[in-house]
Amino acid sequence: MATEKNTMLIFGGTGDLAYRKLAPALYNLYLEEKLPPHFSLIGIGRKEKSSAIYREELAAAIKKYSAHSWKEDLWPDLAERMEYLSCNLTDDASYQELKQELKKRSESAENHNLLFYLAVAPQLFVPIAEHLGRNQLSLSAKGWRRIMIEKPFGFDLGSARTLNDALCSAFEEQNIYRVDHYLGKEMLQNIMVIRFANAVFEPLWNNRFIEQVQISATEVEGIGDRGRYYDHAGAMRDMIQSHLMQMLAVVAMEPPFDIDPGTIRRTKVELFDAVRLWPEEDKGGNLVLGQYRGYSEEKDVAPGTKTETFAALKLAIDNKRWQGVPFYLRTGKKLQEKQAKIVIQFKTPPPVCPWLLEDDVRADGGLPPNILTLKVQPSEGVVFQFNIKKPATASEIVAVDMDFCQPCAFLINTPEAYEKLLADAFNGDLSRFSSWDEIEKAWNLIDTIFYNRQDGADQPCSYDPGSWGPEEADLMLKAAGYRWWN
Amino acid sequence: MATEKNTMLIFGGTGDLAYRKLAPALYNLYLEEKLPPHFSLIGIGRKEKSSAIYREELAAAIKKYSAHSWKEDLWPDLAERMEYLSCNLTDDASYQELKQELKKRSESAENHNLLFYLAVAPQLFVPIAEHLGRNQLSLSAKGWRRIMIEKPFGFDLGSARTLNDALCSAFEEQNIYRVDHYLGKEMLQNIMVIRFANAVFEPLWNNRFIEQVQISATEVEGIGDRGRYYDHAGAMRDMIQSHLMQMLAVVAMEPPFDIDPGTIRRTKVELFDAVRLWPEEDKGGNLVLGQYRGYSEEKDVAPGTKTETFAALKLAIDNKRWQGVPFYLRTGKKLQEKQAKIVIQFKTPPPVCPWLLEDDVRADGGLPPNILTLKVQPSEGVVFQFNIKKPATASEIVAVDMDFCQPCAFLINTPEAYEKLLADAFNGDLSRFSSWDEIEKAWNLIDTIFYNRQDGADQPCSYDPGSWGPEEADLMLKAAGYRWWN
Repeated sequence: MATEKNTMLIFGGTGDLAYRKLAPALYNLYLEEKLPPHFSLIGIGRKEKSSAIYREELAAAIKKYSAHSWKEDLWPDLAERMEYLSCNLTDDASYQELKQELKKRSESAENHNLLFYLAVAPQLFVPIAEHLGRNQLSLSAKGWRRIMIEKPFGFDLGSARTLNDALCSAFEEQNIYRVDHYLGKEMLQNIMVIRFANAVFEPLWNNRFIEQVQISATEVEGIGDRGRYYDHAGAMRDMIQSHLMQMLAVVAMEPPFDIDPGTIRRTKVELFDAVRLWPEEDKGGNLVLGQYRGYSEEKDVAPGTKTETFAALKLAIDNKRWQGVPFYLRTGKKLQEKQAKIVIQFKTPPPVCPWLLEDDVRADGGLPPNILTLKVQPSEGVVFQFNIKKPATASEIVAVDMDFCQPCAFLINTPEAYEKLLADAFNGDLSRFSSWDEIEKAWNLIDTIFYNRQDGADQPCSYDPGSWGPEEADLMLKAAGYRWWN
Repeated sequence: MATEKNTMLIFGGTGDLAYRKLAPALYNLYLEEKLPPHFSLIGIGRKEKSSAIYREELAAAIKKYSAHSWKEDLWPDLAERMEYLSCNLTDDASYQELKQELKKRSESAENHNLLFYLAVAPQLFVPIAEHLGRNQLSLSAKGWRRIMIEKPFGFDLGSARTLNDALCSAFEEQNIYRVDHYLGKEMLQNIMVIRFANAVFEPLWNNRFIEQVQISATEVEGIGDRGRYYDHAGAMRDMIQSHLMQMLAVVAMEPPFDIDPGTIRRTKVELFDAVRLWPEEDKGGNLVLGQYRGYSEEKDVAPGTKTETFAALKLAIDNKRWQGVPFYLRTGKKLQEKQAKIVIQFKTPPPVCPWLLEDDVRADGGLPPNILTLKVQPSEGVVFQFNIKKPATASEIVAVDMDFCQPCAFLINTPEAYEKLLADAFNGDLSRFSSWDEIEKAWNLIDTIFYNRQDGADQPCSYDPGSWGPEEADLMLKAAGYRWWN
């Protein structure tokens, strides 16, 4: 009898996320021998489908999306642990069937751990959680029961609370893995190391030395066929509330005194407590919502839609470290480039050497600032812009880049976010998942922003596809004397 | 009648320095239209030689050593301003001839400026200066008289004073251009900009953040046929007293409050006043002299010679900024690599996050330090070593490099040091030349070091050609817990 069995159940096993991300991640973990002992997978969907067909579909997806090459000889061993089950996810009978199936498998093991992955439409989150609870699938004395859930985690604070209550009534808090896949990205994990393990950066990471911070996640693509979801959500709910807030957290949070997930989460919550829209005292404003031209003609989008496909915010962090430093967050669809990055602009030098500002330099508006760029995607890296004397001139000062390119330095495939997040869930490591408290605070910010908008301000600014968003977003920075570092 | 004529006179016009460095520098300045108006050159040597032959020799040298390509069509215009004069440099009659020649040329100009360049053996410095003074060649109301002089500027403080007195009795201090060609190097000029025009570096440039500094200028070649000079001088007098002390100056000096050459020189002197050998309290010592195996068999070297071809020093700077920070200086012949660079090792992080030091990291002796390397030659650049999380690991920390390569970033020929130094002398800019006060302080340090050596300590340690010098130099750092960053 096996001591321990591990079964992962994907609700939405035939969906985009399962094929594109989860199956390749499992395959990679298998190759790297990081799957837990006696692992098996049950893909759950509405349609009738044989396990044989399902395996073929998974194989095709893995070949297409995995960064690892295809190993024909190893596949059968993994494939035979993968099965398909057809379920009606809103019917208790289906859950009873599932329970019988799992019971059968449990007989040959001392402990049988279950990981439920919710890769389904958000309106199914609450019903599934309730069904799992009601049918005693979410608690057991013989092995753990964990649930992983993808964003959107609610539509606003109220709906997020409803969802969380449903999850919490079925699962214990420490078994709820709220996925924000940005937290699985190498660079986000790296930022805490970069901040706290470098003698040069650590003492500069505050309002004495930092002038402003820009956090952006821009996309070239439009909404594709996600109109039904997206038109209801928009950029603020889809990106700012989740990924951008998490990027903000790793850049701005205080150093956690240990690496216990609880400590890290509390430290983030403390930060979020201090985050607010920048007090509107300059004419640039603190919020710009935009919509790309042609958005209202997209599939499944409501006529006359006012949903924003672009958002730029100017945030303040009301604590000792960040008093006075604006944090600009920006995200949008159909923009000029796909990139996620954090740009730290340092204050221009103190007048230690006033003569450095003489003549041409002063005429040109002062010295170029030092800028540290943390590149999150598409490729990871760190770039530091600093000033040198231009060669062959007497004292002309120019800004140049020092560059660290992570894929160039390490000839290994950077692990996919989902690979790490699944491994974490198997291992019971919550540190790269969002806590309810973080989500609650983030929703609170978004709700407050929407609630406080003036009447008639709900029509987003238009922008051309392929641009960097509406002109108003540039003006917001210009009013403060800055510009976006694109 | 021309308003202004400019004539440069090279004593030692047929020597190595004239052919390799000065002629190519003049040619480059000519191409860049940076020669002063109505420029002409008089090469002065012992041998009889026609100006035609001399021009051919200069052309050959320029073709070989200039970074610019050869322009056959432009050469005649430059060549016809170049003449050769045979002189006995220790005979007043020769100086009277020279005076007549110059007088003739002066007739057609309102002002006739003269730049005397001493590219001769050091024992001729004093006689030439005296002859120039005695024959009224060093002062004039009709145009300036300047003198440029190459190291060695004396053999010790006493002989340096004698030389300086001879120069000063003939020339005014502001017309004495004491060449240390390292001061003409791009990166040395750049370091003040890097230090003072970057908000990130400026606040870190002190003993709160910097652990130790290493300044090295190492050579692969031996002494060649410079034995006669070198065996009398050695590494301390040849390199440490001049180039290494100037590298130390730009890294460690206080920010000068303006760019007046007088201010910069005073600021350097203040630094040199505070420099001393590190108090000998650890067993690693503070001075290692070495001699490469086979040196005593080199040409023109005394049998049983005790001259050092390698020197490594541990210096202290007794001021507020640098209290407690060791500055290691190192130079030598026949070492593994030719490089001149300054390496700044920052203190390892303060315990802001003790958990970063857990497990494997702590076992391995702590976090790698942040290191800033300023590359002076052979190629200029800046490299910053910092710590990141190793990709695909949970929290393994590795040091990586950010790199700025100056020749890659600017597709221009970095001007040769001599090109800039000659242009400075023509323009009357003293900022890149050593003042007597600096030289005096540097000799004072060297003399003190030699004077205080213990009896019997005068035999240098042996080292193998192609190594990084004697083992004792490694032990000096090891005793303090460091190592050379080669």
